[in-house]
Amino acid sequence: MAKTTMKEFPLSKVFQLIEPGPVVMVTTANKKKNNIMTMSWHMMMEFEPPLIGCIISSSDYSFAALCATKECVIAIPSVDIATKVVEVGNCSGQDVDKFETFGFTPMSAKKVKAPLVAECLENLECHVVNTTLVNKYCLFVLEVVKAWTNPDRKERRTIHANGDGTFVVDGRTLNLKAKMVKFPSLV
Amino acid sequence: MAKTTMKEFPLSKVFQLIEPGPVVMVTTANKKKNNIMTMSWHMMMEFEPPLIGCIISSSDYSFAALCATKECVIAIPSVDIATKVVEVGNCSGQDVDKFETFGFTPMSAKKVKAPLVAECLENLECHVVNTTLVNKYCLFVLEVVKAWTNPDRKERRTIHANGDGTFVVDGRTLNLKAKMVKFPSLV
Repeated sequence: MAKTTMKEFPLSKVFQLIEPGPVVMVTTANKKKNNIMTMSWHMMMEFEPPLIGCIISSSDYSFAALCATKECVIAIPSVDIATKVVEVGNCSGQDVDKFETFGFTPMSAKKVKAPLVAECLENLECHVVNTTLVNKYCLFVLEVVKAWTNPDRKERRTIHANGDGTFVVDGRTLNLKAKMVKFPSLV
Repeated sequence: MAKTTMKEFPLSKVFQLIEPGPVVMVTTANKKKNNIMTMSWHMMMEFEPPLIGCIISSSDYSFAALCATKECVIAIPSVDIATKVVEVGNCSGQDVDKFETFGFTPMSAKKVKAPLVAECLENLECHVVNTTLVNKYCLFVLEVVKAWTNPDRKERRTIHANGDGTFVVDGRTLNLKAKMVKFPSLV
Protein backbone atom coordinates (compact mmCIF):
# COMPACT_ATOMS: atom_id res chain seq x y z
CA MET A 1 0.00 0.00 0.00
CA ALA A 2 1.24 3.49 -0.84
CA LYS A 3 2.30 5.61 2.09
CA THR A 4 -0.46 7.88 3.34
CA THR A 5 0.38 11.56 3.52
CA MET A 6 -1.72 13.85 5.70
CA LYS A 7 -1.84 17.55 4.99
CA GLU A 8 -2.45 20.20 7.65
CA PHE A 9 -6.04 21.41 7.84
CA PRO A 10 -6.82 24.92 9.18
CA LEU A 11 -8.23 24.96 12.72
CA SER A 12 -10.60 27.76 11.71
CA LYS A 13 -12.42 25.34 9.39
CA VAL A 14 -12.67 22.33 11.69
CA PHE A 15 -16.30 23.17 12.55
CA GLN A 16 -17.21 22.42 8.94
CA LEU A 17 -16.15 18.80 9.44
CA ILE A 18 -18.15 18.16 12.62
CA GLU A 19 -21.26 20.32 12.07
CA PRO A 20 -22.78 17.96 9.44
CA GLY A 21 -22.92 15.22 12.09
CA PRO A 22 -20.84 12.39 10.59
CA VAL A 23 -20.06 9.15 12.39
CA VAL A 24 -16.49 9.48 13.69
CA MET A 25 -13.92 7.27 15.37
CA VAL A 26 -11.96 8.17 18.50
CA THR A 27 -8.46 6.89 19.15
CA THR A 28 -6.65 6.84 22.49
CA ALA A 29 -3.24 5.61 23.66
CA ASN A 30 -2.91 4.38 27.22
CA LYS A 31 0.32 2.82 28.48
CA LYS A 32 1.45 2.54 24.86
CA LYS A 33 -1.63 0.54 23.93
CA ASN A 34 -3.66 2.09 21.10
CA ASN A 35 -7.43 1.79 21.02
CA ILE A 36 -10.19 3.00 18.72
CA MET A 37 -13.96 3.38 19.13
CA THR A 38 -16.88 4.60 17.00
CA MET A 39 -18.91 7.64 18.10
CA SER A 40 -22.07 9.46 17.03
CA TRP A 41 -22.88 11.59 20.07
CA HIS A 42 -20.78 14.71 19.50
CA MET A 43 -21.22 18.37 18.50
CA MET A 44 -19.28 21.56 17.79
CA MET A 45 -19.13 23.97 20.75
CA GLU A 46 -16.90 26.80 19.51
CA PHE A 47 -15.39 27.96 16.20
CA GLU A 48 -11.81 28.82 17.20
CA PRO A 49 -10.06 27.40 18.98
CA PRO A 50 -12.37 24.59 17.86
CA LEU A 51 -14.16 22.91 20.75
CA ILE A 52 -16.05 19.63 20.41
CA GLY A 53 -18.43 18.17 23.00
CA CYS A 54 -18.87 14.40 23.11
CA ILE A 55 -20.41 11.65 25.19
CA ILE A 56 -18.13 8.68 25.88
CA SER A 57 -19.75 6.17 28.21
CA SER A 58 -17.93 5.03 31.31
CA SER A 59 -18.66 1.50 30.10
CA ASP A 60 -16.53 2.11 27.01
CA TYR A 61 -12.94 0.88 27.23
CA SER A 62 -11.78 4.26 25.85
CA PHE A 63 -13.27 6.13 28.81
CA ALA A 64 -10.45 5.21 31.20
CA ALA A 65 -7.78 6.05 28.63
CA LEU A 66 -9.35 9.43 27.92
CA CYS A 67 -9.62 10.23 31.62
CA ALA A 68 -6.02 9.16 32.27
CA THR A 69 -4.29 10.76 29.27
CA LYS A 70 -6.62 13.70 28.58
CA GLU A 71 -5.90 13.24 24.88
CA CYS A 72 -7.51 11.64 21.85
CA VAL A 73 -7.81 11.84 18.07
CA ILE A 74 -11.13 12.19 16.28
CA ALA A 75 -10.92 10.52 12.88
CA ILE A 76 -13.58 11.03 10.20
CA PRO A 77 -14.21 8.00 7.98
CA SER A 78 -15.79 7.92 4.52
CA VAL A 79 -18.55 5.60 3.36
CA ASP A 80 -16.23 3.09 1.66
CA ILE A 81 -14.95 1.89 5.06
CA ALA A 82 -18.36 1.98 6.79
CA THR A 83 -18.44 -1.74 7.54
CA LYS A 84 -15.12 -1.61 9.38
CA VAL A 85 -16.24 1.50 11.28
CA VAL A 86 -19.35 -0.29 12.53
CA GLU A 87 -17.35 -3.40 13.46
CA VAL A 88 -14.99 -1.20 15.51
CA GLY A 89 -18.04 0.08 17.38
CA ASN A 90 -19.25 -3.40 18.20
CA CYS A 91 -16.39 -4.92 20.15
CA SER A 92 -14.23 -3.79 23.06
CA GLY A 93 -10.56 -2.82 23.11
CA GLN A 94 -10.38 -4.91 26.26
CA ASP A 95 -10.73 -8.04 24.15
CA VAL A 96 -9.01 -7.22 20.85
CA ASP A 97 -6.41 -4.98 19.24
CA LYS A 98 -8.90 -3.18 17.05
CA PHE A 99 -6.32 -1.49 14.80
CA GLU A 100 -4.90 -4.88 13.87
CA THR A 101 -8.18 -6.80 13.79
CA PHE A 102 -9.94 -4.39 11.42
CA GLY A 103 -6.93 -3.32 9.38
CA PHE A 104 -6.64 0.30 10.42
CA THR A 105 -3.19 1.88 10.26
CA PRO A 106 -2.05 4.06 13.20
CA MET A 107 0.08 7.09 12.27
CA SER A 108 1.99 9.32 14.68
CA ALA A 109 0.19 12.50 15.67
CA LYS A 110 2.10 15.71 16.35
CA LYS A 111 0.69 17.02 19.62
CA VAL A 112 -0.89 13.96 21.25
CA LYS A 113 0.16 10.35 21.83
CA ALA A 114 -3.11 8.95 20.44
CA PRO A 115 -2.64 7.89 16.80
CA LEU A 116 -4.14 9.28 13.60
CA VAL A 117 -5.99 6.76 11.43
CA ALA A 118 -4.40 6.59 7.98
CA GLU A 119 -7.59 5.33 6.30
CA CYS A 120 -9.71 8.33 7.39
CA LEU A 121 -10.45 11.57 5.53
CA GLU A 122 -9.53 13.85 8.40
CA ASN A 123 -7.90 13.49 11.81
CA LEU A 124 -8.28 15.95 14.69
CA GLU A 125 -5.75 15.91 17.53
CA CYS A 126 -7.59 16.82 20.74
CA HIS A 127 -6.90 17.75 24.35
CA VAL A 128 -9.61 17.29 27.00
CA VAL A 129 -10.17 20.84 28.31
CA ASN A 130 -13.22 20.42 30.54
CA THR A 131 -14.50 17.48 32.59
CA THR A 132 -17.13 19.27 34.70
CA LEU A 133 -19.97 17.09 33.38
CA VAL A 134 -18.08 13.80 32.99
CA ASN A 135 -19.38 12.33 36.23
CA LYS A 136 -22.97 13.36 35.59
CA TYR A 137 -23.28 12.83 31.81
CA CYS A 138 -19.96 11.37 30.54
CA LEU A 139 -19.59 14.67 28.65
CA PHE A 140 -16.06 15.60 27.60
CA VAL A 141 -15.13 18.98 26.11
CA LEU A 142 -12.26 18.63 23.63
CA GLU A 143 -10.10 21.32 22.07
CA VAL A 144 -8.75 20.51 18.63
CA VAL A 145 -5.06 21.46 18.71
CA LYS A 146 -4.01 20.13 15.29
CA ALA A 147 -6.00 18.98 12.27
CA TRP A 148 -5.10 16.88 9.22
CA THR A 149 -6.74 15.98 5.94
CA ASN A 150 -5.89 13.36 3.33
CA PRO A 151 -6.29 15.19 0.01
CA ASP A 152 -5.65 12.03 -2.02
CA ARG A 153 -8.86 10.27 -0.98
CA LYS A 154 -11.38 10.35 -3.82
CA GLU A 155 -14.40 9.11 -1.83
CA ARG A 156 -15.31 11.92 0.56
CA ARG A 157 -18.92 11.07 1.46
CA THR A 158 -19.45 10.45 5.18
CA ILE A 159 -22.11 8.39 6.98
CA HIS A 160 -24.68 9.35 9.64
CA ALA A 161 -25.95 6.87 12.24
CA ASN A 162 -29.68 6.19 12.49
CA GLY A 163 -29.11 4.28 15.72
CA ASP A 164 -30.62 1.02 14.49
CA GLY A 165 -27.76 -0.42 12.47
CA THR A 166 -28.64 1.60 9.37
CA PHE A 167 -26.68 4.63 8.21
CA VAL A 168 -27.53 7.52 5.90
CA VAL A 169 -24.90 8.26 3.30
CA ASP A 170 -24.25 11.87 2.22
CA GLY A 171 -26.40 12.67 -0.80
CA ARG A 172 -26.43 15.75 -3.02
CA THR A 173 -25.28 19.18 -1.86
CA LEU A 174 -27.74 22.03 -1.64
CA ASN A 175 -26.20 25.48 -2.19
CA LEU A 176 -27.99 28.15 -0.15
CA LYS A 177 -25.06 30.55 0.17
CA ALA A 178 -27.21 33.38 -1.17
CA LYS A 179 -29.35 33.07 1.99
CA MET A 180 -26.37 33.37 4.33
CA VAL A 181 -26.37 37.02 5.27
CA LYS A 182 -25.45 36.39 8.91
CA PHE A 183 -22.04 34.84 8.25
CA PRO A 184 -21.01 36.26 4.85
CA SER A 185 -17.35 35.67 5.68
CA LEU A 186 -17.91 31.92 5.65
CA VAL A 187 -19.40 31.82 2.17
CA MET B 1 -54.21 23.98 3.81
CA ALA B 2 -55.33 20.77 5.45
CA LYS B 3 -55.04 20.65 9.22
CA THR B 4 -51.78 19.09 10.40
CA THR B 5 -52.11 16.16 12.77
CA MET B 6 -49.16 15.15 14.91
CA LYS B 7 -48.89 11.64 16.27
CA GLU B 8 -47.11 10.74 19.50
CA PHE B 9 -43.59 9.44 18.99
CA PRO B 10 -42.00 7.09 21.60
CA LEU B 11 -39.42 8.78 23.83
CA SER B 12 -37.29 5.64 23.68
CA LYS B 13 -36.67 6.26 19.97
CA VAL B 14 -35.94 9.99 20.07
CA PHE B 15 -32.17 9.34 19.88
CA GLN B 16 -32.71 7.98 16.37
CA LEU B 17 -33.91 11.41 15.22
CA ILE B 18 -30.97 13.40 16.62
CA GLU B 19 -28.06 10.96 16.22
CA PRO B 20 -27.84 11.40 12.41
CA GLY B 21 -27.03 15.10 12.96
CA PRO B 22 -29.82 16.91 11.05
CA VAL B 23 -30.24 20.69 11.02
CA VAL B 24 -33.05 21.48 13.48
CA MET B 25 -35.07 24.50 14.52
CA VAL B 26 -35.67 25.58 18.13
CA THR B 27 -38.81 27.39 19.20
CA THR B 28 -39.30 29.39 22.39
CA ALA B 29 -42.18 31.41 23.86
CA ASN B 30 -41.34 34.35 26.08
CA LYS B 31 -44.04 36.68 27.39
CA LYS B 32 -46.44 35.14 24.85
CA LYS B 33 -44.12 35.99 21.95
CA ASN B 34 -43.07 32.97 19.89
CA ASN B 35 -39.64 32.78 18.32
CA ILE B 36 -37.77 30.25 16.20
CA MET B 37 -34.10 29.74 15.35
CA THR B 38 -32.02 27.30 13.32
CA MET B 39 -29.42 25.09 15.04
CA SER B 40 -26.69 22.65 14.05
CA TRP B 41 -24.62 22.37 17.21
CA HIS B 42 -26.43 19.67 19.17
CA MET B 43 -26.02 16.01 20.17
CA MET B 44 -27.70 13.15 22.00
CA MET B 45 -26.55 12.70 25.60
CA GLU B 46 -28.76 9.90 26.94
CA PHE B 47 -31.21 7.34 25.54
CA GLU B 48 -34.08 7.52 28.04
CA PRO B 49 -35.22 9.84 29.28
CA PRO B 50 -33.80 11.37 26.11
CA LEU B 51 -31.26 14.11 26.84
CA ILE B 52 -29.98 16.50 24.16
CA GLY B 53 -27.01 18.85 24.54
CA CYS B 54 -26.95 22.03 22.46
CA ILE B 55 -25.08 25.29 22.08
CA ILE B 56 -27.25 28.39 21.86
CA SER B 57 -25.19 31.56 21.75
CA SER B 58 -25.88 34.37 24.20
CA SER B 59 -26.00 36.63 21.14
CA ASP B 60 -29.03 34.70 19.85
CA TYR B 61 -32.41 36.23 20.65
CA SER B 62 -33.63 32.79 21.79
CA PHE B 63 -30.97 32.62 24.53
CA ALA B 64 -32.84 34.95 26.90
CA ALA B 65 -36.15 33.17 26.32
CA LEU B 66 -34.58 29.78 26.96
CA CYS B 67 -32.92 31.02 30.17
CA ALA B 68 -36.15 32.66 31.38
CA THR B 69 -38.64 29.92 30.52
CA LYS B 70 -36.41 26.80 30.71
CA GLU B 71 -38.48 25.33 27.88
CA CYS B 72 -38.23 24.92 24.11
CA VAL B 73 -39.28 22.72 21.21
CA ILE B 74 -36.80 21.12 18.82
CA ALA B 75 -38.40 20.76 15.38
CA ILE B 76 -36.83 18.63 12.64
CA PRO B 77 -37.38 19.95 9.10
CA SER B 78 -37.15 18.03 5.83
CA VAL B 79 -35.23 19.09 2.72
CA ASP B 80 -38.27 20.55 0.93
CA ILE B 81 -38.37 23.48 3.37
CA ALA B 82 -34.58 23.96 3.53
CA THR B 83 -34.62 27.50 2.13
CA LYS B 84 -37.03 28.70 4.80
CA VAL B 85 -35.00 26.96 7.50
CA VAL B 86 -31.84 28.80 6.41
CA GLU B 87 -33.70 32.11 6.22
CA VAL B 88 -34.92 31.59 9.80
CA GLY B 89 -31.27 31.17 10.82
CA ASN B 90 -30.22 34.42 9.19
CA CYS B 91 -32.34 37.03 10.91
CA SER B 92 -33.20 37.85 14.51
CA GLY B 93 -36.48 37.46 16.37
CA GLN B 94 -35.72 40.88 17.77
CA ASP B 95 -36.50 42.38 14.34
CA VAL B 96 -39.18 40.13 12.87
CA ASP B 97 -41.94 37.67 13.73
CA LYS B 98 -40.23 34.73 12.11
CA PHE B 99 -43.25 32.40 12.18
CA GLU B 100 -45.26 34.92 10.18
CA THR B 101 -42.43 36.13 7.93
CA PHE B 102 -41.41 32.68 6.76
CA GLY B 103 -44.81 31.02 6.83
CA PHE B 104 -44.34 28.54 9.63
CA THR B 105 -47.42 27.49 11.59
CA PRO B 106 -47.19 27.33 15.40
CA MET B 107 -49.18 24.51 17.05
CA SER B 108 -49.85 24.12 20.76
CA ALA B 109 -47.50 21.76 22.56
CA LYS B 110 -48.68 19.60 25.46
CA LYS B 111 -46.06 20.05 28.16
CA VAL B 112 -44.34 23.35 27.25
CA LYS B 113 -45.48 26.80 26.16
CA ALA B 114 -43.10 26.92 23.18
CA PRO B 115 -44.97 25.94 20.00
CA LEU B 116 -44.57 22.92 17.72
CA VAL B 117 -43.89 23.69 14.05
CA ALA B 118 -46.63 22.21 11.86
CA GLU B 119 -44.39 22.04 8.78
CA CYS B 120 -41.73 19.84 10.45
CA LEU B 121 -41.35 16.05 10.44
CA GLU B 122 -40.94 15.74 14.19
CA ASN B 123 -41.27 18.02 17.22
CA LEU B 124 -39.63 17.41 20.59
CA GLU B 125 -40.96 19.23 23.66
CA CYS B 126 -38.01 19.95 25.97
CA HIS B 127 -37.25 21.14 29.50
CA VAL B 128 -33.85 22.63 30.31
CA VAL B 129 -32.47 20.27 32.99
CA ASN B 130 -28.88 21.48 33.40
CA THR B 131 -27.27 24.90 32.96
CA THR B 132 -23.89 24.23 34.59
CA LEU B 133 -21.97 25.06 31.42
CA VAL B 134 -24.21 27.82 30.06
CA ASN B 135 -21.99 30.64 31.31
CA LYS B 136 -18.78 29.07 30.07
CA TYR B 137 -19.91 27.48 26.77
CA CYS B 138 -23.60 28.38 26.21
CA LEU B 139 -24.27 24.64 26.63
CA PHE B 140 -27.82 23.67 27.58
CA VAL B 141 -28.86 20.16 28.54
CA LEU B 142 -32.44 19.46 27.48
CA GLU B 143 -34.73 16.60 28.47
CA VAL B 144 -37.30 15.60 25.87
CA VAL B 145 -40.59 15.23 27.75
CA LYS B 146 -42.93 14.67 24.80
CA ALA B 147 -42.28 13.82 21.13
CA TRP B 148 -44.43 14.09 18.01
CA THR B 149 -44.18 12.94 14.41
CA ASN B 150 -46.17 13.87 11.32
CA PRO B 151 -46.80 10.53 9.59
CA ASP B 152 -48.45 12.20 6.59
CA ARG B 153 -45.30 13.90 5.28
CA LYS B 154 -43.95 12.04 2.25
CA GLU B 155 -40.58 13.81 2.07
CA ARG B 156 -38.57 12.61 5.06
CA ARG B 157 -34.99 13.41 4.01
CA THR B 158 -33.24 15.85 6.37
CA ILE B 159 -30.35 18.24 5.72
CA HIS B 160 -26.92 18.58 7.36
CA ALA B 161 -25.07 21.90 7.60
CA ASN B 162 -21.59 22.20 6.09
CA GLY B 163 -21.18 25.57 7.78
CA ASP B 164 -20.55 27.52 4.58
CA GLY B 165 -24.08 27.97 3.27
CA THR B 166 -24.15 24.53 1.65
CA PHE B 167 -26.08 21.59 3.04
CA VAL B 168 -25.81 17.84 2.49
CA VAL B 169 -29.11 16.12 1.80
CA ASP B 170 -29.69 12.58 3.11
CA GLY B 171 -28.71 10.09 0.42
CA ARG B 172 -29.14 6.33 0.34
CA THR B 173 -29.43 4.16 3.45
CA LEU B 174 -26.76 1.62 4.24
CA ASN B 175 -28.01 -1.42 6.17
CA LEU B 176 -25.33 -2.78 8.51
CA LYS B 177 -27.68 -4.34 11.07
CA ALA B 178 -25.85 -7.67 10.75
CA LYS B 179 -22.77 -5.96 12.25
CA MET B 180 -24.66 -4.66 15.29
CA VAL B 181 -23.91 -7.26 17.94
CA LYS B 182 -23.51 -4.71 20.76
CA PHE B 183 -27.07 -3.37 20.62
CA PRO B 184 -29.08 -6.26 19.14
CA SER B 185 -32.23 -4.95 20.79
CA LEU B 186 -32.15 -1.87 18.58
CA VAL B 187 -31.99 -3.78 15.32
